[in-house]
Amino acid sequence: VAGALGAVGSLVAELLWKHPGVELAAITARDTGDGDSPIGKFLYEIYPEHRVPVRLQTLEALDLSEFKAAVVAYPTGAAASLARKLRHAGLTVVDSCGDFRFADVETYEDWYGQPHEAPELLEEAVYGLPEFNRDALKGAGLIGNPGCYPTASVLALAPLAREGLIADVVIDAKSGVSGAGKRGGAAPPFIGTDENMRPYGVPRHRHEPEIADQLSSLGYQGLLSFVPHLIPLDQGELVSCYVRPVREIGEADLHALYEEAYAEESFVELAPGLPTVRDVQRTNICRIYPMRDPAGTRISVFATIDNLWKGGASQAVQNLNLALRLPEGEGVSDSVAMPVSSDRISPLDRPPVSA
Amino acid sequence: VAGALGAVGSLVAELLWKHPGVELAAITARDTGDGDSPIGKFLYEIYPEHRVPVRLQTLEALDLSEFKAAVVAYPTGAAASLARKLRHAGLTVVDSCGDFRFADVETYEDWYGQPHEAPELLEEAVYGLPEFNRDALKGAGLIGNPGCYPTASVLALAPLAREGLIADVVIDAKSGVSGAGKRGGAAPPFIGTDENMRPYGVPRHRHEPEIADQLSSLGYQGLLSFVPHLIPLDQGELVSCYVRPVREIGEADLHALYEEAYAEESFVELAPGLPTVRDVQRTNICRIYPMRDPAGTRISVFATIDNLWKGGASQAVQNLNLALRLPEGEGVSDSVAMPVSSDRISPLDRPPVSA
Amino acid sequence: VAGALGAVGSLVAELLWKHPGVELAAITARDTGDGDSPIGKFLYEIYPEHRVPVRLQTLEALDLSEFKAAVVAYPTGAAASLARKLRHAGLTVVDSCGDFRFADVETYEDWYGQPHEAPELLEEAVYGLPEFNRDALKGAGLIGNPGCYPTASVLALAPLAREGLIADVVIDAKSGVSGAGKRGGAAPPFIGTDENMRPYGVPRHRHEPEIADQLSSLGYQGLLSFVPHLIPLDQGELVSCYVRPVREIGEADLHALYEEAYAEESFVELAPGLPTVRDVQRTNICRIYPMRDPAGTRISVFATIDNLWKGGASQAVQNLNLALRLPEGEGVSDSVAMPVSSDRISPLDRPPVSA
Amino acid sequence: VAGALGAVGSLVAELLWKHPGVELAAITARDTGDGDSPIGKFLYEIYPEHRVPVRLQTLEALDLSEFKAAVVAYPTGAAASLARKLRHAGLTVVDSCGDFRFADVETYEDWYGQPHEAPELLEEAVYGLPEFNRDALKGAGLIGNPGCYPTASVLALAPLAREGLIADVVIDAKSGVSGAGKRGGAAPPFIGTDENMRPYGVPRHRHEPEIADQLSSLGYQGLLSFVPHLIPLDQGELVSCYVRPVREIGEADLHALYEEAYAEESFVELAPGLPTVRDVQRTNICRIYPMRDPAGTRISVFATIDNLWKGGASQAVQNLNLALRLPEGEGVSDSVAMPVSSDRISPLDRPPVSA
Repeated sequence: VAGALGAVGSLVAELLWKHPGVELAAITARDTGDGDSPIGKFLYEIYPEHRVPVRLQTLEALDLSEFKAAVVAYPTGAAASLARKLRHAGLTVVDSCGDFRFADVETYEDWYGQPHEAPELLEEAVYGLPEFNRDALKGAGLIGNPGCYPTASVLALAPLAREGLIADVVIDAKSGVSGAGKRGGAAPPFIGTDENMRPYGVPRHRHEPEIADQLSSLGYQGLLSFVPHLIPLDQGELVSCYVRPVREIGEADLHALYEEAYAEESFVELAPGLPTVRDVQRTNICRIYPMRDPAGTRISVFATIDNLWKGGASQAVQNLNLALRLPEGEGVSDSVAMPVSSDRISPLDRPPVSA
Repeated sequence: VAGALGAVGSLVAELLWKHPGVELAAITARDTGDGDSPIGKFLYEIYPEHRVPVRLQTLEALDLSEFKAAVVAYPTGAAASLARKLRHAGLTVVDSCGDFRFADVETYEDWYGQPHEAPELLEEAVYGLPEFNRDALKGAGLIGNPGCYPTASVLALAPLAREGLIADVVIDAKSGVSGAGKRGGAAPPFIGTDENMRPYGVPRHRHEPEIADQLSSLGYQGLLSFVPHLIPLDQGELVSCYVRPVREIGEADLHALYEEAYAEESFVELAPGLPTVRDVQRTNICRIYPMRDPAGTRISVFATIDNLWKGGASQAVQNLNLALRLPEGEGVSDSVAMPVSSDRISPLDRPPVSA
Repeated sequence: VAGALGAVGSLVAELLWKHPGVELAAITARDTGDGDSPIGKFLYEIYPEHRVPVRLQTLEALDLSEFKAAVVAYPTGAAASLARKLRHAGLTVVDSCGDFRFADVETYEDWYGQPHEAPELLEEAVYGLPEFNRDALKGAGLIGNPGCYPTASVLALAPLAREGLIADVVIDAKSGVSGAGKRGGAAPPFIGTDENMRPYGVPRHRHEPEIADQLSSLGYQGLLSFVPHLIPLDQGELVSCYVRPVREIGEADLHALYEEAYAEESFVELAPGLPTVRDVQRTNICRIYPMRDPAGTRISVFATIDNLWKGGASQAVQNLNLALRLPEGEGVSDSVAMPVSSDRISPLDRPPVSA
Repeated sequence: VAGALGAVGSLVAELLWKHPGVELAAITARDTGDGDSPIGKFLYEIYPEHRVPVRLQTLEALDLSEFKAAVVAYPTGAAASLARKLRHAGLTVVDSCGDFRFADVETYEDWYGQPHEAPELLEEAVYGLPEFNRDALKGAGLIGNPGCYPTASVLALAPLAREGLIADVVIDAKSGVSGAGKRGGAAPPFIGTDENMRPYGVPRHRHEPEIADQLSSLGYQGLLSFVPHLIPLDQGELVSCYVRPVREIGEADLHALYEEAYAEESFVELAPGLPTVRDVQRTNICRIYPMRDPAGTRISVFATIDNLWKGGASQAVQNLNLALRLPEGEGVSDSVAMPVSSDRISPLDRPPVSA
């Protein structure tokens, strides 16, 4: 794991440490050069909750020929040149940032506002959403792990997009605070975040073209409005997608469409009623509930994930498994999707607020 | 104040206790008949944070001829017959629940699923949104205080509705937990609400026809999708409104439209950037930010209020002032709307989460 | 698992479902007899986050002769007569409530204010703190699983108690909200718990005699003041123990005393600095930091656990393993205690608040 | 207000803006010299929730001869030399940091680890706890506003200290996060603070000698152990004080002692049962509950304040009023202490957690 001190990197390190089919050979960080430098420390000394008894090293100290694969958890922009170096050394690479999520270098440079450092690798890179790219991911050399919002949004909308049912769509996304990273000045402070909520990052949040790109490859090229909001909780993400349908679809057909789409998936779960983020925290599962307005003029699809797991670290491990041709779910999460057991609405679904 | 133990009722009692132009002559509650009965206790003994040194009585113990006005904070359905009694005794009535928010008894009975107990009063009742009904509210005998979501939603969308700019609209609403009331089995528990979020109450939340009704009177009768969400904070509400516009409107024109609409209002504030609920907690202010997508194909309007204040108690006091022809803002809140000081985006607006 | 709908019972069910050496043969609940009855449902239908695909049954529907062991997660008072029935049927029983934590029936009846339903079982019952009772727990037929506060408090104070170092002790305990259970009217509401904190349950909290009992068996019979506080977080517990020492002890000797006491323990961890509850959430680990005032006149010992895990469900599984002579840590938690790696203070220990 | 961007400074500015007897003539901040500099902006542009329509200036831009008084809200160490300058210009000064809380320069330099910049002012400075220093504060030229923990701790313990009842005392203090300030790198991040708690700042927290100093002047010079903890809420502070009494005192005498001590105080309130921080949030009130263990061997005193109000800004305004010989409670808070109305325990006092 390169960059093991970030929120995603440290969780990848923990998952791989416990992974029965992978040996976590090295974790790296930047040497700050002073007395607080993490180099030489065990990861558990810095994050006791991860309890990984492996020492942090600098990347430069490693002999890359000894490694088979790497998960890169660098900030967007910094990962591309490292990925080139690792690929040249023959390693399989899963990149968790935004550097390998676009087939098209122009989209990247337009939305990220910086040149791409390794554009020649874009052709090789596979977008790491296993539910739609599984075959291409098997044995892949370079994988761009999806953003958290695109993961939930694309899983929520894909069945409708493939059917050509979307006339236009609004995605109102709500995320816990851990998306902002674990360290450094950028982390949202407690005061001003607790007991508060807000939209942020619009217009032009970087996940918007990523969602548009994936929906486009599934058949929808129309109007897409994406607005994320910051919610005062640690981890968990809810996307509420509002679709104006091209044609009417009945409630039963709508549910059948989703059941068919995800019947074979271990990490996508249809909910019997409105989902909550608590349902999926600390799992690799995306939980989805499609709903039709009584008048049939709007389809709402709600999806919840854990932004650090399925929206980050555990999906990276899922992709690594595919790339290394290991069992896809191994070491990813100890929870798998449950079937919808009945057609009645769950007791959890009764509205807790009636005002 | 009739029903002073609820979240809204107890706050109305506190506001009226401090109101320089009103004497809080009595507060009532139900006698539980056992050792825990609140009757005879000071309100501050039950809610120390309100510190109102007035004793709770039963409504039956009161001589109504001694009172000039009442704020009724009963559950929806229970208020109508009390309102009749109070009107017959000659009192001015502000009702905080849903019983007097619809001109039309059929809409009420359809959405609330119960017969209306005092339909003859509906004609007299005035909908208590001062920004649009000020003249009718002055001297009114019976006022239906708006729901929290309709307050924020209608203030957010009215300028567009009046211009005939809305082709269709999605309202994704997010509320703190206090909407569910302060007492009794219905209050959401800490476990399962904290570190969680969820959509709720759909399809057919009772605030939807109320919003539709008001937008209709402002000129918009089209498709409206309303979905509320429960967010883990005490009080505060954010509505994110997504409008597909009938025709294009420029950024400057959009802002001018809102500035003109609310220039004279003391309790509506245009934000220089994306608003947060912290901006308005414990005030009677609604803070609004309209925004146009770069492509001009979507207008997003964000509005924040405190659901217990502008969405409940302080707006009830504002309406009571109008009905009694007192200064409108007296005793309502010690904060009033600030002007937008410049066209630059505030530092608070920088996105705190970049993932 | 008898009583699988409570906070501890449902977590025990999840842990046993994943336990490699145990077959989770049945989980029970009370039949409410109406449409909301949980009987016949999968546990995951009620608590999606547990994802246990086992159906709830009534206890009466079970043929007890088919079972080898049971974890009883009933409310205190209700467990004793069930335990008798299960013991008569030959099952090994781990009881998670307060019914089998006292050797002495008088202490129980005095502090719990009710007669004990199965006093003849008290002699057989073993107190389930493996760090001190391991030998007696191996093969035991009936185990009283400790309370959450006693678990942390006794682990924190035992090394001092055994050395005869305690002149008197104050235990200021702070717990997340999950201690109050997952269901029913007793669960603390969000409003009034969030953004709040309070002492509660004093004087005479039921965990006080349990702590006194255990410390007494370790050699300390003096003055003990125990005050719990309710803190606005889901799960996690911190006990801050303030000891007036009988004689002075140096900093190095103090640490050596604790290192020696717990060197061989898999689930007790010495912290390099002040611990936090985040360090141990969702683990079976107790993390301890002893500290001496500069003047040597006070020893403070801080200990953190997860009240639902080491303070409840995972310790119950640890005890079940011992009773069934399975490997002690199997299925208990995927984290084990890390060694203190160095004598320097961790970066996490820098005070975040300086006011 | 000098230093109006901090948590205390901005709240002092808001309180003085609304103060009927004071004109808020200027608020200052540091010029960062770049595009984000606050200089020239209204305070409400930076903190919308304060809504103070006064522009920030640099201190250097002010003509000090135009001012009568100043509240200094600088970091400890930086305030002393400014105070000298202001005193030389003839202003009355209330200093909110630690620079003028000690009569003794050695204690300051020992605990704060830096030389005092204006030691000649220490003799003039009055410690700003009005309940015990009211006479000296009237007309004072320089006031050291107390720390938040000392405010609550001294109010909690003074009645016992004056009676000579304390043999030794442990103060376990718990604070919301706002103590750490509103801006800058030192503010605790959301992740790692939410869903967590921890002791911090020990041994040798700077508030310890301040508490010892004040208790000493009230008659107690013995052993004092002070340990603060960081709790995940915005604002509010609870001190739990555990006293080993010199001699036994009955429950009724204990309560009488406290009632007598604070009967005339507007901002100290005896609680009918265990207090919570919610009882006092956004007020200048300290709420206290003394309690005797059944055996009489320990007295526990619980006190709650709002760390930003009575523990900071509103107490500074109270002190300013005294210094300027204005009515003491004017502009301080719109809540005053309520009497204990009866001897029965309030319903709020029932333990919400029974585990």
